[in-house]
Amino acid sequence: MRDFSGDHRWLSLNTATVRRQGDLAQIIEACARHGIRAIDPWRDQVATIGLDRAVRAVRDAGLELSGYCRGGMFTSDAAHRIEARDDNRRAVDEARALGAPCVVLVVGGLPQYSRPGSVASKDIAAARTQVDDAIAEMLDYARTVQMPLAIEPLHPAYAADRACVNTTKQALDICDRLDPQRSGALGIALDVYHVWWDPELLPQIARAGKDRLLAFHVCDWLVPTTDILNDRGMMGDGVIDIKSVRSAVEAQGFDGYSEIEIFSNAWWEKPIDEVVQTCISRHRSVV
Amino acid sequence: MRDFSGDHRWLSLNTATVRRQGDLAQIIEACARHGIRAIDPWRDQVATIGLDRAVRAVRDAGLELSGYCRGGMFTSDAAHRIEARDDNRRAVDEARALGAPCVVLVVGGLPQYSRPGSVASKDIAAARTQVDDAIAEMLDYARTVQMPLAIEPLHPAYAADRACVNTTKQALDICDRLDPQRSGALGIALDVYHVWWDPELLPQIARAGKDRLLAFHVCDWLVPTTDILNDRGMMGDGVIDIKSVRSAVEAQGFDGYSEIEIFSNAWWEKPIDEVVQTCISRHRSVV
Repeated sequence: MRDFSGDHRWLSLNTATVRRQGDLAQIIEACARHGIRAIDPWRDQVATIGLDRAVRAVRDAGLELSGYCRGGMFTSDAAHRIEARDDNRRAVDEARALGAPCVVLVVGGLPQYSRPGSVASKDIAAARTQVDDAIAEMLDYARTVQMPLAIEPLHPAYAADRACVNTTKQALDICDRLDPQRSGALGIALDVYHVWWDPELLPQIARAGKDRLLAFHVCDWLVPTTDILNDRGMMGDGVIDIKSVRSAVEAQGFDGYSEIEIFSNAWWEKPIDEVVQTCISRHRSVV
Repeated sequence: MRDFSGDHRWLSLNTATVRRQGDLAQIIEACARHGIRAIDPWRDQVATIGLDRAVRAVRDAGLELSGYCRGGMFTSDAAHRIEARDDNRRAVDEARALGAPCVVLVVGGLPQYSRPGSVASKDIAAARTQVDDAIAEMLDYARTVQMPLAIEPLHPAYAADRACVNTTKQALDICDRLDPQRSGALGIALDVYHVWWDPELLPQIARAGKDRLLAFHVCDWLVPTTDILNDRGMMGDGVIDIKSVRSAVEAQGFDGYSEIEIFSNAWWEKPIDEVVQTCISRHRSVV
C-alpha cells in the first residue's frame, strides 16, 4: 500500500465537499493554494461558471481530474426516457472536454425520485432492469469518445431515491454483462461510505481487479448519522477502517487518486481553507 | 398467498409500535379491544410491569406471541462477555415463561455500541466472528429449553451500532453453519424494512424455506427518511412492495403472523386506538 503520510500528492478533492463555500473557480483557487493536484467536479458546479471557463480554470491550474460527477439517474417513466438519455450524453461530452478519466454513475432509484414527474413505482426489480438497459445504451455512446463509465454502488439507504445498485457485487455483475471482455470502458467507483458494511466487500474488490477499479472515494460513517444524505464524516471521525479498504484496492493494483467526497452540513459551514487543511491532514494520517 | 383483506386474524402487534402510549398491560388491553390475537413484546416493557404480571396478562387476554424482542447485542470486549451471555440466557428464560415461539436476535454492531463501555473497535469482521461464536453459545442454552432463535438481519444503515448481520444471506449462512440439520432451533426474522432493497432477497427467501422463516415483520420505508431509527413508516406510506415480499415468504410455506413493528416518532405521538385501527386497516389493504 502506498504511504500517504509524507505528502498529499494522491489526494483528489471532490468539489461537493466545499460546494457551499464557493463556486468552482474559487474551489480551484483553494486547491492551488494547498497544493492539491486533482479534483472531481460536479456538473451543476461546472454549469454555474460555464463549461468553457471550467475547462480553462482546470487547465490553467494544472489540475488533473479523478472523475466527473455525475451521470445516471437512468430510471424514469417512458415520457422521461429520452431526456435521461440525452442528459447522460451531455455528461459524457462535458467529461471529455474537461479531460476526466471517467464519468461516475449514480444510477437512480425508483423513477419518481430519479426523474421527478415520472409515474410512481415500487418495483425496484424493474428499476434495476432499466438501469442495465440504460447503461448499455450510454456505454455505446461513451465508447465512441473513449470515455469510461464508473458505476458507483450506493449505500442501501439510498435504494429508493438515489441508486438501486447497492452492492459492489451488483455493480460488477452489470460490468460483466455489458463488458465481459474487460475493455476498460466500464468499471466501478468505490466509496467507502457506501460499501464499508458489506460482508462481501473484500472478495468483490478482488473480483473487480485493477481494470474495473476506476475511482476510490473516502469519507467516514458517523454514529449517530443524523442526516442520511448530508451528515457524512471527515475521515477518522467515524467507524470505517479506511486503510483496510484502501489496502485491498491497492492490492489489486489501483494506483489512482484517493478522492475525498464529504456531504456534510457541518463541514459546509466551515471556511474553505479549514476544510481543505483538515482533508490534507486526515488524508496523511487515517486514509 | 393468504387473503388478509377480510379480517386481521394474522396480524400481530409488536409492542414497540405503541411503546410511548402505554405500558405493556395497557397495550394488551388495546389489543383486546381491537380483536388482535398476537403480540411480540419487548424485554424492557416486560420488565417494567414484571415478568409474572406480563405472563398473566398475556394468558388472561388469550394472546399468542409471534416472538420475543430481543436477544443479541453479542459484540463486546472481553470484560463484558459474560454479562452479554447471561443477559441472553435470561432472554431465553423470559421467552419460555411467556410462551414465545422464538427469541428475535439483534446481534449487535461494533462493541462500543452493542455493550457500552466496551473498548472501541472499527473491526467489523471481528464483530461478525464474535456474533457467530456467541450465537453458537446461546443456541446450546436455548436448545435445552426448546426455544428457537431467530436472527434478524438489520438494514446496513445499522451495521455500526445495532447489527453487523445486514443481509438475509449472511443470517442464513450463520444458520447453515450452526444448524446444518435444519432442526428448527435456528432461523431468521425477516423485516421488510431491513431487507426490501436487497437484490438477492427473493432467492434467499427460497433458500431459507419454511423451517428457517421464524418471523415476518412489516412496516414501510419512507422517502425521505428523516431519522434512521425512528422514522419508519406505516405500511402503504412508503416505497416497499410489501405484498411481493409476503408472497415470496408464504410461497415457502410460512403461515405465521404478519407482525407490525413501527419505530416512529410520528406514530408514537398519536392515540393508541388510532394507531391500532390504522395498523388493522393497512394490514387488510396493503400487507
